[in-house]
Amino acid sequence: MANSRFEYVRTFERENILLPQTHIIIRIDGRGFHKFSSAYEFQKPNDPNALKVMNLSAQALMKSIPDVMMAYGDSDEYSFLLRKNCDLFERREFKLITAFSSGFSAYYQYYWNIVFPNKPLSVERLPTFDARAVVYPSDSIVKDYFRWRQVDCHINNLYNTSFWNLVIKGHLSPQEAENKLMGTVSSDKNELLFKEFGINYNDEPEMYKKGTVFIRDVRDTLDLVPNSDVNLSKRQVERLRGKLRKVTINELHCDIIKEEFWNKRAWLLK
Amino acid sequence: MANSRFEYVRTFERENILLPQTHIIIRIDGRGFHKFSSAYEFQKPNDPNALKVMNLSAQALMKSIPDVMMAYGDSDEYSFLLRKNCDLFERREFKLITAFSSGFSAYYQYYWNIVFPNKPLSVERLPTFDARAVVYPSDSIVKDYFRWRQVDCHINNLYNTSFWNLVIKGHLSPQEAENKLMGTVSSDKNELLFKEFGINYNDEPEMYKKGTVFIRDVRDTLDLVPNSDVNLSKRQVERLRGKLRKVTINELHCDIIKEEFWNKRAWLLK
Amino acid sequence: MANSRFEYVRTFERENILLPQTHIIIRIDGRGFHKFSSAYEFQKPNDPNALKVMNLSAQALMKSIPDVMMAYGDSDEYSFLLRKNCDLFERREFKLITAFSSGFSAYYQYYWNIVFPNKPLSVERLPTFDARAVVYPSDSIVKDYFRWRQVDCHINNLYNTSFWNLVIKGHLSPQEAENKLMGTVSSDKNELLFKEFGINYNDEPEMYKKGTVFIRDVRDTLDLVPNSDVNLSKRQVERLRGKLRKVTINELHCDIIKEEFWNKRAWLLK
Amino acid sequence: MANSRFEYVRTFERENILLPQTHIIIRIDGRGFHKFSSAYEFQKPNDPNALKVMNLSAQALMKSIPDVMMAYGDSDEYSFLLRKNCDLFERREFKLITAFSSGFSAYYQYYWNIVFPNKPLSVERLPTFDARAVVYPSDSIVKDYFRWRQVDCHINNLYNTSFWNLVIKGHLSPQEAENKLMGTVSSDKNELLFKEFGINYNDEPEMYKKGTVFIRDVRDTLDLVPNSDVNLSKRQVERLRGKLRKVTINELHCDIIKEEFWNKRAWLLK
Repeated sequence: MANSRFEYVRTFERENILLPQTHIIIRIDGRGFHKFSSAYEFQKPNDPNALKVMNLSAQALMKSIPDVMMAYGDSDEYSFLLRKNCDLFERREFKLITAFSSGFSAYYQYYWNIVFPNKPLSVERLPTFDARAVVYPSDSIVKDYFRWRQVDCHINNLYNTSFWNLVIKGHLSPQEAENKLMGTVSSDKNELLFKEFGINYNDEPEMYKKGTVFIRDVRDTLDLVPNSDVNLSKRQVERLRGKLRKVTINELHCDIIKEEFWNKRAWLLK
Repeated sequence: MANSRFEYVRTFERENILLPQTHIIIRIDGRGFHKFSSAYEFQKPNDPNALKVMNLSAQALMKSIPDVMMAYGDSDEYSFLLRKNCDLFERREFKLITAFSSGFSAYYQYYWNIVFPNKPLSVERLPTFDARAVVYPSDSIVKDYFRWRQVDCHINNLYNTSFWNLVIKGHLSPQEAENKLMGTVSSDKNELLFKEFGINYNDEPEMYKKGTVFIRDVRDTLDLVPNSDVNLSKRQVERLRGKLRKVTINELHCDIIKEEFWNKRAWLLK
Repeated sequence: MANSRFEYVRTFERENILLPQTHIIIRIDGRGFHKFSSAYEFQKPNDPNALKVMNLSAQALMKSIPDVMMAYGDSDEYSFLLRKNCDLFERREFKLITAFSSGFSAYYQYYWNIVFPNKPLSVERLPTFDARAVVYPSDSIVKDYFRWRQVDCHINNLYNTSFWNLVIKGHLSPQEAENKLMGTVSSDKNELLFKEFGINYNDEPEMYKKGTVFIRDVRDTLDLVPNSDVNLSKRQVERLRGKLRKVTINELHCDIIKEEFWNKRAWLLK
Repeated sequence: MANSRFEYVRTFERENILLPQTHIIIRIDGRGFHKFSSAYEFQKPNDPNALKVMNLSAQALMKSIPDVMMAYGDSDEYSFLLRKNCDLFERREFKLITAFSSGFSAYYQYYWNIVFPNKPLSVERLPTFDARAVVYPSDSIVKDYFRWRQVDCHINNLYNTSFWNLVIKGHLSPQEAENKLMGTVSSDKNELLFKEFGINYNDEPEMYKKGTVFIRDVRDTLDLVPNSDVNLSKRQVERLRGKLRKVTINELHCDIIKEEFWNKRAWLLK
């Protein structure tokens, strides 16, 4: 190409290839969603329609990228688990994370327009998401990763449920509510909800307490996921991805901390 | 937090901080835009409305991120130059590239819906963009980077103009057109366009031949861009970004290969 | 400190922390040892005294760094396996590899002076070694790593034995010997050695054919190696390293390709 | 090769190529030299013979690697500046830093045996050095880097001179000396040295106060260092390195903080 004189600038490009044979998890996270949720007047503590947009987006992304075996999310974040041997974008980090950040943003805007026909998005405040990829060398750490996110969901939801009840029903100012909750532990908040507002936290919707799990259910087609992609031809990988694309994706709102969840779905970490 | 038991998983996170005191360029690139442009029946060789969506998106992104001093794009790609001392996201690579990939995707979908009210986007084929960041240690390499992109724009546009005239007006099949152009140099294509289709390539629109440049014009407020952010307080950085945000952004379709362009706008690389 | 004005230069330093919970292998390799072995007139194809210097150095390095569980080497290279949970130098790559490269070089020079009292080292040609670290996420890949090195040892030794017999006993020039061996497979070389020089390759010394293995034998003190360092205090880690330091190091010249070797020594990969 | 079955393990290797067109500085640092200097009974505060071994080693390393334009060191550390366009080891970080760490260690042991014939090194305590590489994108930061090291040398030497005079001549315990110096500034220490021990710090040897600088003096052969290696053939690079190898290396003990030093030697940063 006639380009050669300037093409040397490519030598400055750097590439990070994520370590092979490790689990890749990509987590997307809403950018500035505190302000976003205020500007579009999300219902508090949880807006079922806004969560619906999140979940539809996560599911659509998972459908479009067959290497995603599982997704877990709550609030304005979602974590996607790629199958261990996946060679998507040759495991190039920048390709992976920008595919997830831009893909999720695109789905979110698309579904927002459907779910909220009466809340048009302003060009000054469009929904966007950042994304990071982390590799984990063993199954047990992957499980602990998802446990970490679910514990976080629980802690945040209990706090937010308490906080917003104090503000909305208890007529406290945000600052007063914050002060009241400072230093409290879980049992304190459970008691407060029950005594002051007659709310039994255990009866709150599972989706709020546990978040949302999507599972690619290859149970009946376990041979789909090979032990290694190393010996697969490009054609075989494409065929595999085609099959994975057709597998049912199940939505759950269950405990993923106990071993039981993982034991029942051993294929997730295969 | 009660999280501590699982929180060790964070020790697996890796962070790449882009080298300080270097120019960061972030290039976004349409994912699968060959198929995208077919599916939405882009006009060939250039679709002015599709380019309008690109340019509106680039301009909006540049407005929203005041550290961007210049943008250059054509076809389905755009390169953004950040001011040398910028400390956006503390120069963390994953934050930077996913902000640009998701931000650009969001604007593109938004403006598409406005520019193409009769071509609704299908959820099966939403526009997404990947993004990569590269750091360049000197002004002269930054200039060569943009020259590289503009030479590339020229080469591609001359080829595409020839190819699509052969197909549309010359009634060749794509394969025949490709064969006819194989091995030709620029002057051959210029001659072919003139002799067979009466087209003087020089008279083609500047935007197609040269691409689009956006410039943050701090000419009259040169003191805006400091020599270094090192000694600025957080507050001063915020004030600086606020001022940069208000500076006019000019759209140009001009030569950026000659030194003249750069000499006239010395502040770009300050 | 009065240093502050210039100390900003430290912000340019970059640090690579090797992924936790993976096996680290560090391989050292003689720099320019082709010329080194000519200059100091090594016996060909194998110089037992030069190998002795290599082995003494590897053993001394292993003694001084108790986190090394195993070492394997031949010719001018050695690979060191660190225990999986080891947190030596907080897994900082530059510290790890320069400790091994400079440590091995230091021992080599020290033992050279003892083993070769009549071949003083010239300042123009001192022995030096480069070092690289690679992390492997699973036991089976670690085994394959060492198998890779032993297969390499075998291939090289069979070639070198054939080559040098052709040159020394067969009176061929190096070029003639190279030509003669071009395109031959293992069985050809075995036959050549036997027919032309009466050498049964199987009877060659095990150390030449298989290389050298050093094992830290914690068999009787299996509780030494914990499942994880995460919960150990600094003091406990120090005590552990102190104990590992005292454990016997065994020298072997055996097959490490078959599973048997690894099954017998499960602690190596614990 | 018959190796193929296991050779996949190489896909786990990672490579860091240092950014082109930036200055590389490699700093070596004695490992555990506090204990090393006690064990071999270094003269305090400065041991001229031990410094001689350091300086001989730095000079020898600089001679053997012609891309080093300048070295600066004191105590148990040395910093080496590579010429900006140098492509040594294709700028691969692991090769660069292990070449410097093992090379410096090798020279140090070699010269130790010459300078200290009566202090044989013990195998339990051989001298080793770690090494790190940092890239700097501009001349002014490179200057500040060396200024940082010289300021550090000054601060440490003033402290050590005071400390050891208090201990040796003042008969204080190390703890008492430390307490006495706590919170003192430079002028306090100068006064203390003068009043208590009749020492005018300004009269101390320049090498102790300023450290040691080695310069590759290409003054009369300025055309040696090209503006860029990009267009040089391998042969031209080799010829260039051959010439640089022959250029005189000067030893200085001067101020490198003032601009004067750098203005006089513009080629260093060319």
